[in-house]
Amino acid sequence: MTSTALTTAHGVFPIAPTPFTDDGAIDFASIDRLSAFYLRCGATGVTVLGQLGEAPKLDAAESLAVATRFIEAFGRTPVIVGVTAPGFAAMRTLAHEAMARGAAGVMIAPPNTLRTDDQIVGYYAQAVQAIGTDVPFVIQDYPLTFGVQMTPAVIGRIVGENPSCAMLKHEDWPGLEKISTLRGFERDGSMRRISILCGNGGLFLDFECERGADGAMTGYAFPDMLCDVVRLQREGRRDDAHDLFDAHLPLLRYEQQPGVGLGVRKHVLQRRGLIASSAQRAPKAALTPAARTEVEYLLARLARHDARAALKPV
Amino acid sequence: MTSTALTTAHGVFPIAPTPFTDDGAIDFASIDRLSAFYLRCGATGVTVLGQLGEAPKLDAAESLAVATRFIEAFGRTPVIVGVTAPGFAAMRTLAHEAMARGAAGVMIAPPNTLRTDDQIVGYYAQAVQAIGTDVPFVIQDYPLTFGVQMTPAVIGRIVGENPSCAMLKHEDWPGLEKISTLRGFERDGSMRRISILCGNGGLFLDFECERGADGAMTGYAFPDMLCDVVRLQREGRRDDAHDLFDAHLPLLRYEQQPGVGLGVRKHVLQRRGLIASSAQRAPKAALTPAARTEVEYLLARLARHDARAALKPV
Amino acid sequence: MTSTALTTAHGVFPIAPTPFTDDGAIDFASIDRLSAFYLRCGATGVTVLGQLGEAPKLDAAESLAVATRFIEAFGRTPVIVGVTAPGFAAMRTLAHEAMARGAAGVMIAPPNTLRTDDQIVGYYAQAVQAIGTDVPFVIQDYPLTFGVQMTPAVIGRIVGENPSCAMLKHEDWPGLEKISTLRGFERDGSMRRISILCGNGGLFLDFECERGADGAMTGYAFPDMLCDVVRLQREGRRDDAHDLFDAHLPLLRYEQQPGVGLGVRKHVLQRRGLIASSAQRAPKAALTPAARTEVEYLLARLARHDARAALKPV
Amino acid sequence: MTSTALTTAHGVFPIAPTPFTDDGAIDFASIDRLSAFYLRCGATGVTVLGQLGEAPKLDAAESLAVATRFIEAFGRTPVIVGVTAPGFAAMRTLAHEAMARGAAGVMIAPPNTLRTDDQIVGYYAQAVQAIGTDVPFVIQDYPLTFGVQMTPAVIGRIVGENPSCAMLKHEDWPGLEKISTLRGFERDGSMRRISILCGNGGLFLDFECERGADGAMTGYAFPDMLCDVVRLQREGRRDDAHDLFDAHLPLLRYEQQPGVGLGVRKHVLQRRGLIASSAQRAPKAALTPAARTEVEYLLARLARHDARAALKPV
Repeated sequence: MTSTALTTAHGVFPIAPTPFTDDGAIDFASIDRLSAFYLRCGATGVTVLGQLGEAPKLDAAESLAVATRFIEAFGRTPVIVGVTAPGFAAMRTLAHEAMARGAAGVMIAPPNTLRTDDQIVGYYAQAVQAIGTDVPFVIQDYPLTFGVQMTPAVIGRIVGENPSCAMLKHEDWPGLEKISTLRGFERDGSMRRISILCGNGGLFLDFECERGADGAMTGYAFPDMLCDVVRLQREGRRDDAHDLFDAHLPLLRYEQQPGVGLGVRKHVLQRRGLIASSAQRAPKAALTPAARTEVEYLLARLARHDARAALKPV
Repeated sequence: MTSTALTTAHGVFPIAPTPFTDDGAIDFASIDRLSAFYLRCGATGVTVLGQLGEAPKLDAAESLAVATRFIEAFGRTPVIVGVTAPGFAAMRTLAHEAMARGAAGVMIAPPNTLRTDDQIVGYYAQAVQAIGTDVPFVIQDYPLTFGVQMTPAVIGRIVGENPSCAMLKHEDWPGLEKISTLRGFERDGSMRRISILCGNGGLFLDFECERGADGAMTGYAFPDMLCDVVRLQREGRRDDAHDLFDAHLPLLRYEQQPGVGLGVRKHVLQRRGLIASSAQRAPKAALTPAARTEVEYLLARLARHDARAALKPV
Repeated sequence: MTSTALTTAHGVFPIAPTPFTDDGAIDFASIDRLSAFYLRCGATGVTVLGQLGEAPKLDAAESLAVATRFIEAFGRTPVIVGVTAPGFAAMRTLAHEAMARGAAGVMIAPPNTLRTDDQIVGYYAQAVQAIGTDVPFVIQDYPLTFGVQMTPAVIGRIVGENPSCAMLKHEDWPGLEKISTLRGFERDGSMRRISILCGNGGLFLDFECERGADGAMTGYAFPDMLCDVVRLQREGRRDDAHDLFDAHLPLLRYEQQPGVGLGVRKHVLQRRGLIASSAQRAPKAALTPAARTEVEYLLARLARHDARAALKPV
Repeated sequence: MTSTALTTAHGVFPIAPTPFTDDGAIDFASIDRLSAFYLRCGATGVTVLGQLGEAPKLDAAESLAVATRFIEAFGRTPVIVGVTAPGFAAMRTLAHEAMARGAAGVMIAPPNTLRTDDQIVGYYAQAVQAIGTDVPFVIQDYPLTFGVQMTPAVIGRIVGENPSCAMLKHEDWPGLEKISTLRGFERDGSMRRISILCGNGGLFLDFECERGADGAMTGYAFPDMLCDVVRLQREGRRDDAHDLFDAHLPLLRYEQQPGVGLGVRKHVLQRRGLIASSAQRAPKAALTPAARTEVEYLLARLARHDARAALKPV
């Protein structure tokens, strides 16, 4: 997939978790199972080694092994590899290795020390210089987690100055107006078109599609729902899209809790039989018995509307 | 209401907005209308001059005038007055004046410079010394907005060291385990009982009640729903509580957006005929036409489940 | 003094502390004594109710009383009043009252929630709208304390959009290049000239003068030294300026400690007989006996080079 | 050197920069030259791969190569290796490799997301579990850079819970009282003794020694001065220590500027002939011509008191 290809990507790129066995080793079999499931759901790509992929908890060799396994499993479907790092040397190394193995592009989040507009634009310029101007990249815009606030104008500058910028992982909150503004930039010619896929757990995906987003890039444990909602919106079936989304919202909201959310996500993926274990590496926030009970209750309620949530008891 | 009374408070204390006329003056008639509505809904109290009450945009005389009007309108029902201030002199002045006019207590949020456990505990000790040890007070625990993280143990220390601490406005996110832990402290005798009312827009109110919260203290534009959910949970009608809550969740989530949320809230309150104008004082984030349309769509969808959302067109 | 007058101000505007008696009342007699001393030193103005003037610890009436007393004491010499506030209502009220009593202008620091360039520029636009476009104002640029980073371009935009912007209190760290860049803007015509007075405790005053600053606006307990250094630099006596500055640097550095610095400053001012008590209002960081001993040692060492530091023992 | 050995370390452990050639490669010859110089100065150890060693700009293989070269050059003199990383996997890998090559211990700074006391203590517990309980480690306490505030009590808990904690790199600001408090803990038996070496550019080294610090761990370009000051204080020659320190303070202060400071430091080290090039890897802040001139002026002034600053012109 060329840079041009990623700039027109749409649909759903799930953010993949990194499955571990109970003793903390990487569970490659679960990567294969998860990948097959994503493809069956209709995922149009996947993003690995993101924040929720526990990327910082892998060493360099493990990171490459995980990315490679997903790339092999996805075949011609694009895989984006998170290469966010505290310095450009490690970023360059992983970017080059991942691209050499067939990644479609990389994703870069800003370090949380950035404040001014120029600092943010300058950072992406340096990152592009480090990884090479031929590597398609995704801007990750997630102020809640990274503490960096990018205005639409700043995103426009990054897109304008870096031809290899292909996509925005949009997860500002609130963020609806930002999508409208960016699409306005494209219409008035002040910014070339890029793909906008939305994260932030999918909490506003229903309206984000209507504002002009191309789809979702997030890790909710029912990526099949995300694919359906994006498809329904694309088909103009607005009410159906909202009906399905709203049915999932109580669980989706529960999963979108900072810190503890990953535990919920891995637990539900395990309950669905998609990963063998919900184990996380440290530091981690484990689910309490009370939380597990709440998740079961939410799943049971959801199952009344969406049969995919009717999981057999443990 | 004595300190003892507030410590056993339950139900719903809406966070009241401060209504303005279109030219920015305080709209006292709307305060009366809003107060009457809150009481009809079954509110067991009210909190004024909070963050969403645009407290920092009022000068000292206006703050007192707003608090006084609510106190008069609420009669024997308790009114809590936000007295958060950059210094203790202004905090003391407003606290004394509000209590003299009949407030039931005051609410204090920590300044965002606090980091260590001791700094937080020390701050509340100094605040109590400033306002007087006889003034019942509420801890506002809202890390998302204030950047201050209080562990359950820190809250326990504040409660233990300050007999006038009557209530926790709980709006940590995630926060369910915090409620369980605090109620555990009470059970094992390491902390005396206080009232816990939940904020954060009500985003987890469904489960917060089940974890031991006494109710809600938040500003969602359907406080009648909040009252119903708390009542249903109290009556043991868990599924009914969740059914009603889930029907509101798409709108509630939309309202719970940082910054723009207040605009949504005032708009819906105006649509419901409860305040004359949705005007805010600067700095403000106004609703765009697209956002207004989205809110109307959400209201129409909600009206299928809750007739109170069936508002006549503008 | 008109706005034009402040824009060409130079020399030293000490940041005045607010003197309290031991029981916490405002000590107006010490304000008079301090003011007379500042004028004798050659101060060309003064700034009151700044961060180190413990402004947030005064209520509205006290703030005005302190500002008024300094204004009376300074006569025709300009007094700048800090009006930084959590909201525009309180800011407007104090600005209007202070100007009515004869203040030369006001100083405004940004709230620490501001991140993007546009947010900062927008904030000053709203503040100017609140206080009135005819009130000369000073931008306080102190990232270490306020967490807001203003690029030279942002300062240029604020100056360009607000004719009443008269001065920059420059206390970025590092900050030497910022002064050079701003003076460059003036030379190339992209920004009109404003006065730049330097804060940050004076830690780089020696070179700031050489980079183009007009002088100092800081609270070091030897404002007479600050006046001398600025004068010597103005007279082209570079080595003499540095000799004097370097002699003071060990003490100046000791005074420029966050939090505890104000205690050092008030202690030295009291030792010099300029204020009756070193009392602070809460929250405060008191000097330990060890710290007092260290200050005495630094004063004794300084006295070998500057007789003004030879204070009689307590 | 065993854990016990590091806990009694004193003197000066310079923070070593990582020398690069002009084209960005690691300059191993300069590592050797620098190491020989440190040993000639009387350094009792060295710390590599710290923040100012540009550690995040090296990839995994480079980090190990740099650490190894310093370890070889220092022989039996202890080398501490910075292993701060965004996750425990990378931290463990580097720690094990460095220890296998002969490092005396590792240094760990906290991630800037930590807020509460328990979070900080918990982080170090997890880090120790990751690297192994037999690896001596140094706590880096630098709130200005990392945004994490550790009270003396928190440091005491880390020391108490982790027998492998050997040393504190103390660079809180203000920090004098913290040293006194920690030494008080040791005297009253509530904390076992650890080594305290001071960083923060050495800005308060004069008094830190008097408060009980064992010496310095910082990167000032005249480590020979640091060694002398620590020695003079140890010999009870207080005035001599301050005289030497004060002569260096104008330059030391200039070097201790965030961001630009590393450029100053590498420039002076190059001027002294200790590294071949002052090149930094991106992101970097280069010295402007004006800054270079200022450094030369400061060196010339310093040379009047300390002949080591009399460098031959470029």
